[in-house]
Amino acid sequence: MTAPAARPGGWVEQVQFGPSDLVPVVAQDANDGRVLMVAWADRAALLETEHSGYAVYFSRSRGRLWRKGEESGHRQKVREIRLDCDADVVLYVVEPEGAIACHTGRASCFYRRLEHGDWVTVDPVLEPPRATEQA
Amino acid sequence: MTAPAARPGGWVEQVQFGPSDLVPVVAQDANDGRVLMVAWADRAALLETEHSGYAVYFSRSRGRLWRKGEESGHRQKVREIRLDCDADVVLYVVEPEGAIACHTGRASCFYRRLEHGDWVTVDPVLEPPRATEQA
Repeated sequence: MTAPAARPGGWVEQVQFGPSDLVPVVAQDANDGRVLMVAWADRAALLETEHSGYAVYFSRSRGRLWRKGEESGHRQKVREIRLDCDADVVLYVVEPEGAIACHTGRASCFYRRLEHGDWVTVDPVLEPPRATEQA
Repeated sequence: MTAPAARPGGWVEQVQFGPSDLVPVVAQDANDGRVLMVAWADRAALLETEHSGYAVYFSRSRGRLWRKGEESGHRQKVREIRLDCDADVVLYVVEPEGAIACHTGRASCFYRRLEHGDWVTVDPVLEPPRATEQA
């Protein structure tokens, strides 16, 4: 066996990418622990995230890299990148700039909670929605 | 439009399941906000989670429902079930029984952190690993 990450970016080869060479990424707020969103990344997105220090994903709908906040300004400064036991899910621990992760204008995409058999919106819209920020 | 969740379990029909009729599920510790694991659920797993109050997933490797902790005893009592904006990711906010989510015997599956281009194990093993608890 060769040593892991013996060359720059070698760490990304240890990630088990799934169909379409994408891996799911959970983004978590470093300040309050809130789960903000789940999106996807390819190798290039992971490498640019490491290099730039800001969260980069792969937009499946647009078929290209998605530099979070490139249009909205709500970038996510990455404090930690973590990998799970099966190496098939990545976690970005981020400091959100602007407190909005969701294209609906909410802090988190997980703004609906199951209550008595219904999905209930429990988190407020903090600014007008931005359809362009959708993954 | 019909009213959402007009019948018992109707909420599960609003979830956008992906390939193999599965949806990714993020499990988060209700106590400290830690992201514990990401697994998968089918309709039956979501319905049983709601009904039982404990986290149920679908094990892709075993091809059946996975009642978390059924062998290890490390069940996850579910405090909240949330859905994201695209309705294609579910969040279980859980109270872990036994403080172990990972089959490696760690609190969280995300125990590796990227440091200077290498994945470094930063969280301790709390009890001997249980291979049978793997998804």
